[in-house]
Amino acid sequence: MLNIQNPIEARKIIRKNEYKDQTAGTANKYVQGNLCILPSKYAMDFASFCQKNPKPCPLIGFGTKGDPSLKDLGDIDIRTDVPQYRIWEKGKIIDEPYDIKKYWNEDLTTFVLGCSMSFELPLIEAGIPIQHIENDTIVPMYRTSIDCEPAGQFSGKLVVSMRPLNSKDAIRSIQISSRFPAVHGAPIHLGDPSEIGIKDIMNPEYGDPPKTFKNNEIPVFWACGVTPQSVLQDSKPDFCITHAPGKMLITDKLNNDLAAL
Amino acid sequence: MLNIQNPIEARKIIRKNEYKDQTAGTANKYVQGNLCILPSKYAMDFASFCQKNPKPCPLIGFGTKGDPSLKDLGDIDIRTDVPQYRIWEKGKIIDEPYDIKKYWNEDLTTFVLGCSMSFELPLIEAGIPIQHIENDTIVPMYRTSIDCEPAGQFSGKLVVSMRPLNSKDAIRSIQISSRFPAVHGAPIHLGDPSEIGIKDIMNPEYGDPPKTFKNNEIPVFWACGVTPQSVLQDSKPDFCITHAPGKMLITDKLNNDLAAL
Repeated sequence: MLNIQNPIEARKIIRKNEYKDQTAGTANKYVQGNLCILPSKYAMDFASFCQKNPKPCPLIGFGTKGDPSLKDLGDIDIRTDVPQYRIWEKGKIIDEPYDIKKYWNEDLTTFVLGCSMSFELPLIEAGIPIQHIENDTIVPMYRTSIDCEPAGQFSGKLVVSMRPLNSKDAIRSIQISSRFPAVHGAPIHLGDPSEIGIKDIMNPEYGDPPKTFKNNEIPVFWACGVTPQSVLQDSKPDFCITHAPGKMLITDKLNNDLAAL
Repeated sequence: MLNIQNPIEARKIIRKNEYKDQTAGTANKYVQGNLCILPSKYAMDFASFCQKNPKPCPLIGFGTKGDPSLKDLGDIDIRTDVPQYRIWEKGKIIDEPYDIKKYWNEDLTTFVLGCSMSFELPLIEAGIPIQHIENDTIVPMYRTSIDCEPAGQFSGKLVVSMRPLNSKDAIRSIQISSRFPAVHGAPIHLGDPSEIGIKDIMNPEYGDPPKTFKNNEIPVFWACGVTPQSVLQDSKPDFCITHAPGKMLITDKLNNDLAAL
């Protein structure tokens, strides 16, 4: 991980295709976002899907049709400013490029969704150990049995991220993440994974498996910004672009600007 | 339970020794308090104990030596305005009178501590079922293995109250009770009771046993205002007066006045 704490510096390196790592830890006082770029015919339905599912899909950036900039979030060119992308056709990944200059066109609309990294720093600052960060792995993410609220052609299952925490830290993490409704807010579940349709906690659908659970640790589950990728697999739009998991858009917005309290 | 929603009316009935029930549900928009009355030689140590243990002992009223009124909390005469008292000598209960006129003297200081009833109403208003209220029983309370911070001669184990909740309601209850730091605030534990030294969840030391736990319910534990009574049993001051469990002081302060947010 590069030790860059300035988001503009970080994007400069990313823009030159010189950044191949995950973005966790880079400019970590600043909001990082999940990306979804769609043709205009899907844009309203996707905006509606985000509105109906604010926990997994908290919309923090909304581009103008055909415009690759996102002025609200910084001096951003969305065609180059994410370390790695995924290109989807009818629910299948057809490419994972480092920029999307050749895929961009005048009909595309950009959506940026908040990400749990924004509350992980406050958790760490509160002395709560975050296993996947301590192990430098990607947070484990699971497809649950919980249906998102459908909107137009978009429907699918909620994806959650999981952090093993002891009871005391679980309680504190609920308080802290509640301050950040724009980046998933409070957990949606804790304890028995089977209650939300997770069969094997050691086999996440996305990210890396958790290490062992200590004796007094319980799994705590937050709605996850990878949900749209799961929904895209189910809903199969003709075309769309997302970020590659763990390789997020780094914005100029401070995490603390997203705190409700 | 009498359906009296005005705290002044409620105290009028209590003052005449015409109220024999528990106070839960009576004037339930208003703060109810745990009582502890001590000779002046213990008063500073007990005040310090409360300051060091704000979760179990949130001090909401502090009388003047020899003065039975508590003007901050309403037109209160502490000698008559609690439905039932306990008189303690060297850690043993020697009487449970309906007023303390014959025990009151010029050397006594009154302490009133916040109580979980103040956050139970907001929980119910949020649609969270509270088992012991639905069953009209007293909340189950347990002596834990957690030591309070000692102060002078006061030391002892933390007592907790327990409410069985499903995961979703547990998370919401943490958010709601966090708004009320003056009445125990967020839970201190959830899940495995043995982690805090509770051997048998079906056998509480105070209050009534819980009914069954539903499949998806976990025990959620809050610091409890009965802690001072447990501490008094351990610390054995020559003399002191408390309320009888469930028979609290009803004040004129609105629960919502205690909300931090």
